[in-house]
Amino acid sequence: MRIGLGQIEPQIGEMDKNLRNIRSILDQARENDVEILVLPELANSGYAFDSKSEAFESAERVDDGEFSHMLKDWSKNGRLIVSGLCERDDERIYNSAVVFAEGSHILTYRKVHLFNKEKLWFAPGTTEPPTFEHNDACFGVMVCWDWAFPEMARILALKGAQVILHPSNLVLPYCFDAMKIRSLENHLFTATCNRTGTERNLQFSGKSQFTSPKGEVLLSLGEGEPELGVLNINPSDADEKKLTPRNDVLADRKPEIYSRLTRSS
Amino acid sequence: MRIGLGQIEPQIGEMDKNLRNIRSILDQARENDVEILVLPELANSGYAFDSKSEAFESAERVDDGEFSHMLKDWSKNGRLIVSGLCERDDERIYNSAVVFAEGSHILTYRKVHLFNKEKLWFAPGTTEPPTFEHNDACFGVMVCWDWAFPEMARILALKGAQVILHPSNLVLPYCFDAMKIRSLENHLFTATCNRTGTERNLQFSGKSQFTSPKGEVLLSLGEGEPELGVLNINPSDADEKKLTPRNDVLADRKPEIYSRLTRSS
Repeated sequence: MRIGLGQIEPQIGEMDKNLRNIRSILDQARENDVEILVLPELANSGYAFDSKSEAFESAERVDDGEFSHMLKDWSKNGRLIVSGLCERDDERIYNSAVVFAEGSHILTYRKVHLFNKEKLWFAPGTTEPPTFEHNDACFGVMVCWDWAFPEMARILALKGAQVILHPSNLVLPYCFDAMKIRSLENHLFTATCNRTGTERNLQFSGKSQFTSPKGEVLLSLGEGEPELGVLNINPSDADEKKLTPRNDVLADRKPEIYSRLTRSS
Repeated sequence: MRIGLGQIEPQIGEMDKNLRNIRSILDQARENDVEILVLPELANSGYAFDSKSEAFESAERVDDGEFSHMLKDWSKNGRLIVSGLCERDDERIYNSAVVFAEGSHILTYRKVHLFNKEKLWFAPGTTEPPTFEHNDACFGVMVCWDWAFPEMARILALKGAQVILHPSNLVLPYCFDAMKIRSLENHLFTATCNRTGTERNLQFSGKSQFTSPKGEVLLSLGEGEPELGVLNINPSDADEKKLTPRNDVLADRKPEIYSRLTRSS
């Protein structure tokens, strides 16, 4: 299975240019026979909003937005795409990830753990992160800062995810090492697609990354430039959950001991 | 607060020699004004048992064992010690960590997540990992392979632990990087005390490690030799849980979304 990370550089307030750049990376991905493509968080809108109204202006509904239509269109002919999207639903906006496959909308995940000023404009998602089946593989979706909560990758693993698709806009340095541990502790692949560039003093770090079920870095992109990274993986490599003959990273869990994790404090 | 890691090299079947070596590291720690000392998992017995009866032979009760008595004695005059212990309770044995302070037994934690052949001799613990207060600081305890379950460090953080004391006998290479992430995701200190040496083809990796609430390695010991590592820390540095002005690593959790984590599958 051929997975691509479309590391791009959107800019606030330049929606037309952003869509042109996305079109270009979509074309590259198609030419490279990418079957599954991950784009960054808020891929078409840019990230560093100054106000809720500015964020609202760049938002679209999944069912009639221009960007969503572009993604849906690309997903025809056996392809699948997940991208961050500034999503509008009536008067609320969400920092969402949308999945399209075979020309259809598969699901929308609204980011649960909002980062810093995102809390000023976005409503948080209120459901656990989703998984879906595609070409006999099981994928999970989470967005950027969800990495900081081990609960999220764990939930995806418990739901059967073999590969976590992870649109991101990273400004702190910690995520890449953390995703290696998320892979290892759940024995699954992760595909973190980050963005590059600077917006209003926020520097994004690039270095989009694939990790293996053993926590190895399989591919790490450059820091500063838009770039397409492509990797062939076998998602079923994530099915073996044993780290020793007697240790299974999921079956060895003791949920009866973890009740504190679901208590509201 | 001055914390020490007593990285030693016990040997199966040489209990007297093991106790002499422990006595020596206890003396060193006292001479170095260590207030809190961590020893490895199964510090007096060695690790690589061949049979349940061999493990049973090296086990002791906390209330009348020679090793426990030595630990209790060292803890007088304001000191605290946590050590791994092959613990006997009637016909069962446990891979335990015992804590003594001020000449008293504070608590015993029985390892919940047993590693590989440990499952053949030890009964697993059935309670969540414990915390305790000492000199205005809050400590948590877990043992070795518990590191692979992010649930454990998270539970300790939710119970208020500022420092995780972590007796270990490590043979796989992953724990040190994982503990950096356990520190970061919970904003607390970790003190992993590993052992060195080889037993029956098992090579232990040394490199006992302190990490900071920011996930930095504060101290890493050598790989091959017994050694005392000492560090001064301020446990209250772990009280600030904010990674950004609007993000608190614990308060931002969404327990209402995590219910899958406590379901038996």
